[in-house]
Amino acid sequence: MSYEEKTMKSEKIYEGKIVNLRIDTVELPDKKYSKREIVEHPGSVGIIPVTEDGSIVLVEQFRKPVEKALLEIPAGKIEINEEPKETALRELVEETGYIANKMEYISEFYTSPGFSDEKIYLFLATELEFEKENPGDDEYIEIKKIKIEDLINMINRGEIIDSKTIISIFYAEKYINQK
Amino acid sequence: MSYEEKTMKSEKIYEGKIVNLRIDTVELPDKKYSKREIVEHPGSVGIIPVTEDGSIVLVEQFRKPVEKALLEIPAGKIEINEEPKETALRELVEETGYIANKMEYISEFYTSPGFSDEKIYLFLATELEFEKENPGDDEYIEIKKIKIEDLINMINRGEIIDSKTIISIFYAEKYINQK
Repeated sequence: MSYEEKTMKSEKIYEGKIVNLRIDTVELPDKKYSKREIVEHPGSVGIIPVTEDGSIVLVEQFRKPVEKALLEIPAGKIEINEEPKETALRELVEETGYIANKMEYISEFYTSPGFSDEKIYLFLATELEFEKENPGDDEYIEIKKIKIEDLINMINRGEIIDSKTIISIFYAEKYINQK
Repeated sequence: MSYEEKTMKSEKIYEGKIVNLRIDTVELPDKKYSKREIVEHPGSVGIIPVTEDGSIVLVEQFRKPVEKALLEIPAGKIEINEEPKETALRELVEETGYIANKMEYISEFYTSPGFSDEKIYLFLATELEFEKENPGDDEYIEIKKIKIEDLINMINRGEIIDSKTIISIFYAEKYINQK
């Protein structure tokens, strides 16, 4: 596909702690102009921590945008000068207390490319060791270790409703079944 | 989990065509205040159109936020007073030219609950009939019909990098294997 949208004007609306908002005026192939609302995000990392007995370590936390607590894989924003793998190792121990002796890159994807550039880098964390008690103390996070077959049922019952977590459970199912 | 973040103040930053941005000041369990940047979105529908021969109908379009063309399932924003199933039927024919005689609700999920309330309702479209030529004429969309086994390989090679599309292909794989 050779078609692209050329930026004719770019207007910064907001610069925040996690996201920025800008409006681009673009030229379409028919030479008409259109506006694009774009939410800039520094990118995130998601970690799939798989234990020896075929469970995944998940975290539950309140998410203000959706006004409810969600069960999700451990994840976090990539900080400046950080490689995604470093973020993965850091966030896993911060949120769950586990250290991964093996942290493998799985894939990357955009969460909502229609209006945002947020990309998530996904890692599989195995050979886990419990490092510290009371992790994520100041993050108001609850840690849950759940068997893969139960997680598949939870997806089917609509109890897991975060996109990166659904993708991760499907990946983990394939990984565990291959072992 | 009983913990919630009480809204102490809510400030509208921007109201747009597709997204709004607001900043909520919330009270945490320790009574401290924090800010939440929230991107409001009306919600979307994604359609998994599965043909008789085990292919999925996908669309490729340029996505300004990520500055590249992405291969995705047909999808679209829910309009005012529209039920998600109506959106699914409308978007499928608009973007691909196919009418679905069977349109089944599969699941719903949040794309990026850390900063946005965008929810996607996913539908499985089967018993497809080709309705019209040159669909999506003004949307600059290319239509591609691809076998499920090829799509799995494309995910593994990092050629499909849209989260709702990855979820949809994993669902379609399960559906086609069950038939």
